[in-house]
Amino acid sequence: MRRWNGWGDDATSMALNDNARAMMHARLGPGRPGQDATRESLLARIPASRISAHPLIATDASSRLSMALGESFADWIRKRFGALPPVPDGVAYPESSEQVRELLDLAQQHGWIVIPIAGGTSVAGHLDCPVSGRPILSLSVSRMNRLLHLDTTSQLATFGAGTPGPLVEAQLRAHGYTLGHFPQSFEYSTVGGWVVTRSSGQQSLRYGRIEALFAGGHLETPVGPLHIPTLPASSAGPDLRELVMGSEGRFGVLTEATVRVTPLPEHESFHAIFLPNWDAAEAAVRTLVQRKLPLSMMRLSNGIETETNLTLAGHATLIGWMERYLALRGCGTDKCMLMLGITADARTARHALNEARRTLRSFGAVYIGPAMGSKWAANRFKGPYLRNTLWDEGYCADTIETAVDWPQVKPLMLAMEQAARDVFAAYGERVHAFTHLSHMYPQGSSIYSQYVWPTAAGGFAPNFERWQKLKAAVAQAIADHGGTVSHQHGVGRDHATQLHVEKGPLGMATLAQLCKHFDPQGTMNPGKLLQDGGPWAST
Amino acid sequence: MRRWNGWGDDATSMALNDNARAMMHARLGPGRPGQDATRESLLARIPASRISAHPLIATDASSRLSMALGESFADWIRKRFGALPPVPDGVAYPESSEQVRELLDLAQQHGWIVIPIAGGTSVAGHLDCPVSGRPILSLSVSRMNRLLHLDTTSQLATFGAGTPGPLVEAQLRAHGYTLGHFPQSFEYSTVGGWVVTRSSGQQSLRYGRIEALFAGGHLETPVGPLHIPTLPASSAGPDLRELVMGSEGRFGVLTEATVRVTPLPEHESFHAIFLPNWDAAEAAVRTLVQRKLPLSMMRLSNGIETETNLTLAGHATLIGWMERYLALRGCGTDKCMLMLGITADARTARHALNEARRTLRSFGAVYIGPAMGSKWAANRFKGPYLRNTLWDEGYCADTIETAVDWPQVKPLMLAMEQAARDVFAAYGERVHAFTHLSHMYPQGSSIYSQYVWPTAAGGFAPNFERWQKLKAAVAQAIADHGGTVSHQHGVGRDHATQLHVEKGPLGMATLAQLCKHFDPQGTMNPGKLLQDGGPWAST
Repeated sequence: MRRWNGWGDDATSMALNDNARAMMHARLGPGRPGQDATRESLLARIPASRISAHPLIATDASSRLSMALGESFADWIRKRFGALPPVPDGVAYPESSEQVRELLDLAQQHGWIVIPIAGGTSVAGHLDCPVSGRPILSLSVSRMNRLLHLDTTSQLATFGAGTPGPLVEAQLRAHGYTLGHFPQSFEYSTVGGWVVTRSSGQQSLRYGRIEALFAGGHLETPVGPLHIPTLPASSAGPDLRELVMGSEGRFGVLTEATVRVTPLPEHESFHAIFLPNWDAAEAAVRTLVQRKLPLSMMRLSNGIETETNLTLAGHATLIGWMERYLALRGCGTDKCMLMLGITADARTARHALNEARRTLRSFGAVYIGPAMGSKWAANRFKGPYLRNTLWDEGYCADTIETAVDWPQVKPLMLAMEQAARDVFAAYGERVHAFTHLSHMYPQGSSIYSQYVWPTAAGGFAPNFERWQKLKAAVAQAIADHGGTVSHQHGVGRDHATQLHVEKGPLGMATLAQLCKHFDPQGTMNPGKLLQDGGPWAST
Repeated sequence: MRRWNGWGDDATSMALNDNARAMMHARLGPGRPGQDATRESLLARIPASRISAHPLIATDASSRLSMALGESFADWIRKRFGALPPVPDGVAYPESSEQVRELLDLAQQHGWIVIPIAGGTSVAGHLDCPVSGRPILSLSVSRMNRLLHLDTTSQLATFGAGTPGPLVEAQLRAHGYTLGHFPQSFEYSTVGGWVVTRSSGQQSLRYGRIEALFAGGHLETPVGPLHIPTLPASSAGPDLRELVMGSEGRFGVLTEATVRVTPLPEHESFHAIFLPNWDAAEAAVRTLVQRKLPLSMMRLSNGIETETNLTLAGHATLIGWMERYLALRGCGTDKCMLMLGITADARTARHALNEARRTLRSFGAVYIGPAMGSKWAANRFKGPYLRNTLWDEGYCADTIETAVDWPQVKPLMLAMEQAARDVFAAYGERVHAFTHLSHMYPQGSSIYSQYVWPTAAGGFAPNFERWQKLKAAVAQAIADHGGTVSHQHGVGRDHATQLHVEKGPLGMATLAQLCKHFDPQGTMNPGKLLQDGGPWAST
């Protein structure tokens, strides 16, 4: 069963081995486990619904609590410490575009706020409820979870927008196809959520971001339907798909999405490679991606992350021998691990791996082989489970990500880690900050930094304050280096304050104008993407 | 020197060999050369400018005539028959974003209409001047034609928007780079024009359409500047680049564009391959593009185009022997020619060619080799020159293109050719219609049909009427099959009537709202993209 106050299914957990625990102690001091609130105590405090009975809308406390929050760190500590912000007044589970239409009309008629939700995995505050005199309806598309049409000639598949990753892949695999979109939230996040937040999957190097996969669909907006037909390419004016992507529930509710699928690959493998230091490693992956080799993934950990991952992996004796071998081959304490994915027909896969290894050798790379890669693939969606474990040990964990052109990748990576250290130093605390590049482009790369720090004593308020300072400091570093506010998590409420840096004044006015155009009454997800909603509870 | 009433430089011409002439006679009857108007006669009829003297604006008749029209068939016969519609009242050649800003402010202050222009190669009526009480300023960005910045680490190059293809490539080649964007209009069309009309180059299979190449830029809009920073990828809300692309001068004037460039390739070659018939050929190219092999181009001619091209090629004896050989190998009268481009490092090129040939063999393909491919490459921008030759022989020529998902490619291709034949049959005339697919995607393909028919006696009016009926009938066929109004030429005035079919009512309202947002006074290029301008001269 899905955890109500932590990541994922409660049958899955990631243990921390003794060496990893010792590393955390050494780097951060002992953990300080907080006292978790019970779900019952939160349920007892949910106020009466302001939405009157309707056959499509559930108003029981349990449904409302389950839709109230996402998976951001702020959402996490709200649940863990029982610091309950406003929750929706009702939850609807429409099963068709027609029912979504009916609900939007109802919402406008009664002056409700509508917050669309699917997998509920947002880590950017997309699901926050404002403090408002207006009733709030959470509109879940999770029952629209079917493969509606598959055209194998055009390799196009139409899904209900609420179809989660595993159901996308299972329904396609039955026909020999894959979408190939594997974000870390894959187990719960949905095709509709991917589209409206511009998601990126781990193998985007082969399959493309969701921007490349989304071919068309159906959006119900407050002022009527927007149907986007599939076209292989078009020069017919601005591309309306691009308004749907990244709209984060502001323009309407995506009900159906047609995506570009691919036959299941003949060959797929993942390979671990070590490089002597960051500069060599960055130059190597930049060279590979600029060569446009048919790879499916590159994931480059910096030195601290490499050390962290090797410690987390367990098998200390085995890893110890590997490290001795690597050191002899020139990959010592500064070494960086690269995970390389190859997904193709067998001959192309062979060509790609040979070429990649040939290029990597010139940067001092040591090829380890596919064993660690297979292990990575087996655990590819398990990373977030570690957050549950760390919390129980008394540590907080969060991630912040961006993307920037190559010349700023290293300076920004260092600045993001340093900004976090400075924030916690002011509290007399330490933070363990480490980073990888997971999505590389000829022009630049995403940067994905992870932060672990000891939970503060005193419950919600001091922990929330530390997190806010962390987010603000790292966001400032990102803005200073010309990075985007988000490469793969979207804007939501958490990044809305910074969006103007990259969109500029006229860009921001344009987005506001589009909100007004599609949603003249301000029904849809206010305060997300743009800072026009709220006020917000201090919790 | 560039021809004022025909395509290209007057030092270049494409002769029609005797066999090609005989084929035209046999298929269409004798040509009927019209009487060309002189440039002087047109200049003499240009009315006085309604724009008073300004240091940035030329108002002489010669400048105004040269900016008045593009390269559409309608524009062509206007010039050839001297049927002059309204021309701009003045022409400005700003050299900086600041001067563009000044001109836009001036235009709004005086109530002028502004029509941005660069290479002037539009074949969709982007440059038409409405019949209006408002003075019309043609704003040419052609002096903004420099490489302003090259970042070899991120492989990003910033150009003045008016930089034409040859200057883009020459300035990049000096540093060992290429943009790789080669539309047939390459000799004159510009980076800015490519962006605002969503252009596609012949090797888009490797380099991507301009959508993939355009990384950011600077747009001066009537309400202020919109600066779009370069980012390798972003999930930060709707992508504003996508509003600039396809805006066709409606939202403002693009002054600078940053594009993604690539080191010059180690290897480039083009290969001719024949397939027995259309069905085998279409299945073969679909299989190749869906395999995502690293090819740089596929260009598949249907049977009529294959025959036409082999006749146009000359060398009748040589071609005759080749056709005998092909027939023995199963490629007889229905054969279709495929031109395959390979652009990559040497080893990847070898892999790609081997894999492509292996796949093609299973569809009955016969590989001819690179000689015809080299000839194609040498003449890759010469096609439009044939229009000059045909006109002199008494024939009209035009092209209509679209893109559609694979299941509709053949039905739509046949319908586009048949619609043309039906239109001319009603006049008791014949039309030579032939087609190729030049841009293929896993999901579908572009369709590029060419039409040649005898010039009608009687000057502008009967020729204009025939062309209007041709465009309308083919557009209807495209709409009936779910094709886009344009894959690579844009909307302009000629396709604006059909745009609603693919954008839908809310999509059209959204584009209109965006025009109003960026251009509240309706200054920018009215009647293009959307049907809100005019009235238009009957000529």
